[in-house]
Amino acid sequence: MKNQRTLFDTIGEKLRLERIATEIRDMSMDNISKTKSGHPGGSLSVTDILTCLYFGRIYNSRQGRLENVLNYDPCDPLWEGRDRVIMSKGHAAPALYATLARAGFFDCQVLKIYKKIDSPLEGHPAMFQLLEDGKERGTRGVDFSTGSLGHGLSLAAGMALHAKVYGYDYDVYTLLGDGELQEGMPWEALMTVPNKGLTRTCAFVDYNHLQVDGSVDDINQLEPLEKKLKAFNWEVKVIDGHDFYEILDLLAYFKLKRTTRKKPLMIIANTLKGKGVQEIEGDFRYHAVPLTLEQLEKASKAFHHRMEEIDREMSRYSPSTVPVKEIEKTSPPLAQDDLREIISRNPPGEYKVPTATRIGYGNCLARLGEYKRLFVFNADLEGACGASAFCKKFPERGANPEDCRSINVGCQECNMMAMAAGMASCGKIPVVNTFGIFSTGRAWEMVRQDISYPRMNVKIIGSHTGIALGEYGVSHQSIEDVGVMRSLPNIVVIEPSDAVQADKLFEKVLLYDGPVYYRIGRNPTDLIYVKNNIFGVEPVLDFEIGKGILLREGDDWTIIASGSVLCQALKVAQMARESIQVIDMPTIEPVDEALIIKAAMKTKRIATVQDHYKNGGLNDAVLRAIAKHRLQVEFHSIALSGFAESGSPGDLYEKYGLSASRIMEQLGLTRKT
Amino acid sequence: MKNQRTLFDTIGEKLRLERIATEIRDMSMDNISKTKSGHPGGSLSVTDILTCLYFGRIYNSRQGRLENVLNYDPCDPLWEGRDRVIMSKGHAAPALYATLARAGFFDCQVLKIYKKIDSPLEGHPAMFQLLEDGKERGTRGVDFSTGSLGHGLSLAAGMALHAKVYGYDYDVYTLLGDGELQEGMPWEALMTVPNKGLTRTCAFVDYNHLQVDGSVDDINQLEPLEKKLKAFNWEVKVIDGHDFYEILDLLAYFKLKRTTRKKPLMIIANTLKGKGVQEIEGDFRYHAVPLTLEQLEKASKAFHHRMEEIDREMSRYSPSTVPVKEIEKTSPPLAQDDLREIISRNPPGEYKVPTATRIGYGNCLARLGEYKRLFVFNADLEGACGASAFCKKFPERGANPEDCRSINVGCQECNMMAMAAGMASCGKIPVVNTFGIFSTGRAWEMVRQDISYPRMNVKIIGSHTGIALGEYGVSHQSIEDVGVMRSLPNIVVIEPSDAVQADKLFEKVLLYDGPVYYRIGRNPTDLIYVKNNIFGVEPVLDFEIGKGILLREGDDWTIIASGSVLCQALKVAQMARESIQVIDMPTIEPVDEALIIKAAMKTKRIATVQDHYKNGGLNDAVLRAIAKHRLQVEFHSIALSGFAESGSPGDLYEKYGLSASRIMEQLGLTRKT
Repeated sequence: MKNQRTLFDTIGEKLRLERIATEIRDMSMDNISKTKSGHPGGSLSVTDILTCLYFGRIYNSRQGRLENVLNYDPCDPLWEGRDRVIMSKGHAAPALYATLARAGFFDCQVLKIYKKIDSPLEGHPAMFQLLEDGKERGTRGVDFSTGSLGHGLSLAAGMALHAKVYGYDYDVYTLLGDGELQEGMPWEALMTVPNKGLTRTCAFVDYNHLQVDGSVDDINQLEPLEKKLKAFNWEVKVIDGHDFYEILDLLAYFKLKRTTRKKPLMIIANTLKGKGVQEIEGDFRYHAVPLTLEQLEKASKAFHHRMEEIDREMSRYSPSTVPVKEIEKTSPPLAQDDLREIISRNPPGEYKVPTATRIGYGNCLARLGEYKRLFVFNADLEGACGASAFCKKFPERGANPEDCRSINVGCQECNMMAMAAGMASCGKIPVVNTFGIFSTGRAWEMVRQDISYPRMNVKIIGSHTGIALGEYGVSHQSIEDVGVMRSLPNIVVIEPSDAVQADKLFEKVLLYDGPVYYRIGRNPTDLIYVKNNIFGVEPVLDFEIGKGILLREGDDWTIIASGSVLCQALKVAQMARESIQVIDMPTIEPVDEALIIKAAMKTKRIATVQDHYKNGGLNDAVLRAIAKHRLQVEFHSIALSGFAESGSPGDLYEKYGLSASRIMEQLGLTRKT
Repeated sequence: MKNQRTLFDTIGEKLRLERIATEIRDMSMDNISKTKSGHPGGSLSVTDILTCLYFGRIYNSRQGRLENVLNYDPCDPLWEGRDRVIMSKGHAAPALYATLARAGFFDCQVLKIYKKIDSPLEGHPAMFQLLEDGKERGTRGVDFSTGSLGHGLSLAAGMALHAKVYGYDYDVYTLLGDGELQEGMPWEALMTVPNKGLTRTCAFVDYNHLQVDGSVDDINQLEPLEKKLKAFNWEVKVIDGHDFYEILDLLAYFKLKRTTRKKPLMIIANTLKGKGVQEIEGDFRYHAVPLTLEQLEKASKAFHHRMEEIDREMSRYSPSTVPVKEIEKTSPPLAQDDLREIISRNPPGEYKVPTATRIGYGNCLARLGEYKRLFVFNADLEGACGASAFCKKFPERGANPEDCRSINVGCQECNMMAMAAGMASCGKIPVVNTFGIFSTGRAWEMVRQDISYPRMNVKIIGSHTGIALGEYGVSHQSIEDVGVMRSLPNIVVIEPSDAVQADKLFEKVLLYDGPVYYRIGRNPTDLIYVKNNIFGVEPVLDFEIGKGILLREGDDWTIIASGSVLCQALKVAQMARESIQVIDMPTIEPVDEALIIKAAMKTKRIATVQDHYKNGGLNDAVLRAIAKHRLQVEFHSIALSGFAESGSPGDLYEKYGLSASRIMEQLGLTRKT
């Protein structure tokens, strides 16, 4: 690293960076104190690292010129070839905002409305997005939303994987807090990044040794941190996080070797919490307590005094004459393939015998696999979820990188979900496979923070759902997944009712631009959408998101269901003396209100049936529609009243009230004689 | 370790253990194949370790006698002084069940109904519990329910912490799979157990190198595993997991040094998946695929052949004459303090100015702190959640261990939640503090698997909830927490509406025997339950779980609310020309149906107001009650339609429709002139 160092090592360059860092500290302290809310300590400790990333230059000896550390264009914040920076310790937002303003992403005046209503500057970083209506959302220059600790490195891994598979030439930098390394989630990413060869990843630990409640070393120490990270197969360097030379040396080392390196680079940056504001330096209480206006004034004076000193010193040095490389905004050509065309060329196959919806879904994934934006994530349940056919065609490792459109991260649902979000932020369509209890439960907060909130176009598969799963038992029977997904804004919740629909409807899921939860089942169920089905109903040929299907007309009752219990509802209609109409409602959120109204007007009696706990499911969606339109109808909900147990699906449906005969009994229906 | 080894090392003892292990393998393969469901590979790989734990004996040279490795009494499975075993890789249930049956916890005939309906043997282990009605639940000998990977070591940590604080003399053993170490959650526990000095913890990694989709080393390798675990401050030993000598040597080493050791012990046991059934040894496809009946017959023949051989060989050895120590069923005396008496001695203080509900809650925790069963968990938000007063009185470290009734694990919500569950399984009352987004979101699956399903008596605090949080922004504004907790069976959901109630009602939460989610807020709100409150309502003096409070009578409308928006509802009643009655509904699940019916009959118009997303909250609970009782009323829901943003609480309530004036506008009410 001698070269860069000796050349970089000009007082002038150091002074230039220190000047900028001081401005950033001054601006961020000002925001926090005037808003009376924010995190000064951790913003000050990470400032010098941010300064080196956004304003540092390193020497490329081969090309005899200086390069900016980061490739970015403040006028084009969404340029897809840009280097990414993830502020995993999102509470350091003030430092990030001041840095981005100073770098020209937006006017410094905007900083004054930090955390105010209608401001683009959220309390914690909100990624920049262009909405369909042309409106902007979030903060220019923020590559992904953060705030909840531990997500950052997984988001970065998803972006790095995207670059590797789709041939982009960008690097991904992550800024980690020390406290957040107590979380388990970063260790999933720390394991995966080197194991999957995502060597274009560089991460900093802002090791200021203090967290909200006190000293990291007292509360739950990370030591020996260097050993831990090395044992997780990272190249690890330990530096003074306030020494511009040391930071830039390592960034030069990473950047100039980035295409040939064998391991990702982790930089443990020893820092001082509150660095630059003497009276709060090393005081954990200023993690989230703003400086008083008096403290602020004092600090600001000191900052400005130092800036004047620097200006005087700098005037003595002639600026570097080495040319600085212009950014070259190249990106690989986008795949021109058209999903609609691929769909038309690859119709679903025929279904003849009872089949699980996971198989129907898997068939769709495989037949549309050639669509290049499609990428499949697995967490050790590839076969179980039905994704194997796709993954055989488009394996994780292969001669042709752009055909390697699947990855199996092992038992890491949280990391997988955030990685998928990171890739989706690059414009691809990740499909995430695992059991419903894990995709909606274990990873609920990742779905919330990384997919639902920024509305990432991720398709979330939940397999083995409901008590229809049978023998695996309560720990695996997901009976809350619809509820916890409906509890989130922006997510479409779909439960196909047979394999034919699971196959055909997934086309629409892929065409739809937004997050979808797709609830499927493990065990074979009777086919509904085939000619001569055992229920004697006319099969529909096409399905739409948000549209229910009236499968059977009737006058006395309307039964609405989705998933494997729909077969039971259809049997009820066949067995009962009463005239019953049956509605298939595969889209549970948003539910088909028009069809519900029509049905309610006609039969005045509505029952919902769900293989799901009584709270949060299809029943609540239907009931809400009824109440919204002030319909005077009799409403019955047939659902689970608690956890079930292990047993055969048939035995469980009988014992827990979801079999046709038990449904009839609960609705007081009478058998045909 | 020479001593134990040389003495133990009698062929007879080894043969005895091999005989038992063979029986266990024979029984577990039989269950799996006849049930046509289960996990043979991982059951066979862990069998020899289980055998040594439950049937091994080690030599205590000081006392000149043999000791059983585990202290347990099959006739008294809930004896609180017993050593605990957590099968973290819950899919190995068949091996555990066969072991427990062989150890006398239940009749071997019970194994035949494995996974059948009404069987005590769930697909994945269900902990043994005695219900209030005297009925039994789960499997005798199972110390905690498992099945979802990664929870085990945290559950064990909670039990070990319980022993340390409350003076019990038991050890806790955890059986980990290798695949599950890809999860982040175990690394939280791996960090915490040594850092918190929980040295009575011994864990095995059943390192068979295979997971569901293939080789652990290919999918997401753990290597260098020994280095990783050492860097996490464990004492690590690597052994052949099928060598009885090696396993017992280490168990002897752990057991005889257990009171003096400095670090917990991690045993990496290299094992062979499918060990003992030649045809499937080392074949990952048999992770969850039962042997065919033909394969079973062949395997069973081999097992029985080996058992006969062993019996012949054993007959040649005279059994060991060294006495075996009887188990001494001692436990420390239970604290005799009575919570009701403590409550009567420590009434709440007076409240005079607007106060946050987190403060009211914290005051209650502090004034009842002397109750010895009470234990407080924090995750780096001790002060933020209001728990500091308690934690100052009962700190993590101190001269008197039994006064050390709090712990701060740092940023580890998942580990904290499972640790609390582990401690609750020992009869204590853990209170878990963090922000609502983390307690109900990040740790949702831990709440589900470890608290809701086994109905553990854990009090889950969710602070900083709703958009009333203000400036922190979307990542921290929990607007789904009520929905995701209501989606779970067995959990009472409570949101106190002012600081007075937050303080007084928490008494009832502690008296209630079961899981509770307690939703509190960060910012001060007006006091309601004080004399001369600004709303002119008569303050109630006592509160009951499940009971709403009619604060104001009215004829035209009923507004039902809980939490900080109740103040807005009360203002509406003061401002509006219409006659409005206002109900405080602090218990959202189960909701006070009787009061709702009464109100509905009277006003025929009901509105709910919630600082929560429109799905899953109080509105759904009220609507459900209305539908259930077929009440013909006009229902209005005032709630959030999506994520908000950063801003002051007042600005946010105004913009997002929760301020008094916006509520009036949405309900079409008119102002008094």
